[in-house]
Amino acid sequence: MEVKLASHYGFCFGVKRAIKIAQEHKNSATMGPLIHNQKEIDRLKKDFNVGLYSTIKEVKEQETVIIRTHGIPKNDLAELKKNNTKVINATCPFVTTPQQIVKKMSQDRYSVVIFGDADHPEVKGVKSYGDDVHVVPNSEDLDSLVFKYDKIATVAQTTKQKEKYLNIVNSLILKYKEVRVFNTICDATFENQAATRELSATVDIMIIIGGKNSSNTKQLFNISQENCVSYLIEDESELNPKWFANKLVCGITAGASTPDWIIQKVIDKVEKIEP
Amino acid sequence: MEVKLASHYGFCFGVKRAIKIAQEHKNSATMGPLIHNQKEIDRLKKDFNVGLYSTIKEVKEQETVIIRTHGIPKNDLAELKKNNTKVINATCPFVTTPQQIVKKMSQDRYSVVIFGDADHPEVKGVKSYGDDVHVVPNSEDLDSLVFKYDKIATVAQTTKQKEKYLNIVNSLILKYKEVRVFNTICDATFENQAATRELSATVDIMIIIGGKNSSNTKQLFNISQENCVSYLIEDESELNPKWFANKLVCGITAGASTPDWIIQKVIDKVEKIEP
Repeated sequence: MEVKLASHYGFCFGVKRAIKIAQEHKNSATMGPLIHNQKEIDRLKKDFNVGLYSTIKEVKEQETVIIRTHGIPKNDLAELKKNNTKVINATCPFVTTPQQIVKKMSQDRYSVVIFGDADHPEVKGVKSYGDDVHVVPNSEDLDSLVFKYDKIATVAQTTKQKEKYLNIVNSLILKYKEVRVFNTICDATFENQAATRELSATVDIMIIIGGKNSSNTKQLFNISQENCVSYLIEDESELNPKWFANKLVCGITAGASTPDWIIQKVIDKVEKIEP
Repeated sequence: MEVKLASHYGFCFGVKRAIKIAQEHKNSATMGPLIHNQKEIDRLKKDFNVGLYSTIKEVKEQETVIIRTHGIPKNDLAELKKNNTKVINATCPFVTTPQQIVKKMSQDRYSVVIFGDADHPEVKGVKSYGDDVHVVPNSEDLDSLVFKYDKIATVAQTTKQKEKYLNIVNSLILKYKEVRVFNTICDATFENQAATRELSATVDIMIIIGGKNSSNTKQLFNISQENCVSYLIEDESELNPKWFANKLVCGITAGASTPDWIIQKVIDKVEKIEP
């Protein structure tokens, strides 16, 4: 089977940075999963003894705690710092930006709309920095909102699709006198999405590798599905040879939290499949 | 011929206010045409002796000068005030708003995009309040722009179509990290446009009454044309009975600077046309 790789895929700047930080802090623990990839988290535990906390209560005094790439809510961060914990912040700088925007806009008396998923850790973190903040996954959800202020500011979850962000922003512009639009969708997300769009239009089947709870991976899958048969897998063990019957060329891409070693195993296995 | 009037048409708040101001200042003169309707300007001259200046140089000391609804450039206003002229400001408050926004945004180091026509007096006035200000009539014109600052603020000529404003805004959002969108298109414009869209879909022919150099009237004409045969006229003398052959119902609307007495004459004449 011929394999074609997307021109942009896999680890983004924020994920690379976070893994480097984790590797430099052996015997520490992360607050929540560092990135949305269980296999890479397992590797960090095995090779660097980097543990994982789910709640702040579990953290013991004097411990070193690494903040996940998605960031954590403001009050959680404050509590960690208060508790004599050594806090290492691996929040992606592109996530720190919307956190700070929400903080500033709230101080300036803007109601804030976050285009994102309310239960995503990044969005929970960003939301916590503001006062009147509303999380909106679709433009239809805007109708039911009641804003505290008459000026609106908007940010987007860093891994969302720009086109959908515009739908939400446009609805707001038609209704409110001032809408301050911050394009916080990160370039890596955009580049991976564009490369997926391009590649999926030229191949017979697409394999998207990434965590099933990874927002940016799901976006790649959605984009790819518009062009060809697509499968979202976490590693090579999920590959099913039946998918490749009558297919000649397989495109491969991976989410921003998928390490190269997993991608390489998938490539090796797909290449061996007889078309 | 049956006539149906649009649910919203004709004089807007700003025009009504300006005409009232002019009538209260007999023997004054306006700086540029007060509104885009020559017949109403002729009436003000005849009944109230309100004259008309084309340039500041013509104004004599101690005279009373009325600023037109569209506003005038900042420096022209300053020069008038300096010259011992009694300045009465009939600038529509909905035009003063984008002027002040452009001033504030320039102070805060935003590059400003005005969606509008560069040679329209309102746009010339609004533009004069800023530092790095670019007038853009279509989204395609954005590509050639070079901005001084990395943050963008946008305003629109008050009489433009919202949908076209969104096209421009969306192109900017995809390219810049912050776009501050001020929806300065006035409600009267929007209401007249919506009413024209609605009426033109239900009649056989539409007559749009207004100045040929009136931006808001041209927008009504463009919207109407999408639904039925439409004619833009300045007064009843331009009506051509041939237009109405085989037509049963005629819709009528008028731009924001068209006085009721002109609209009434058109209605009277159309009603007398045999279908």
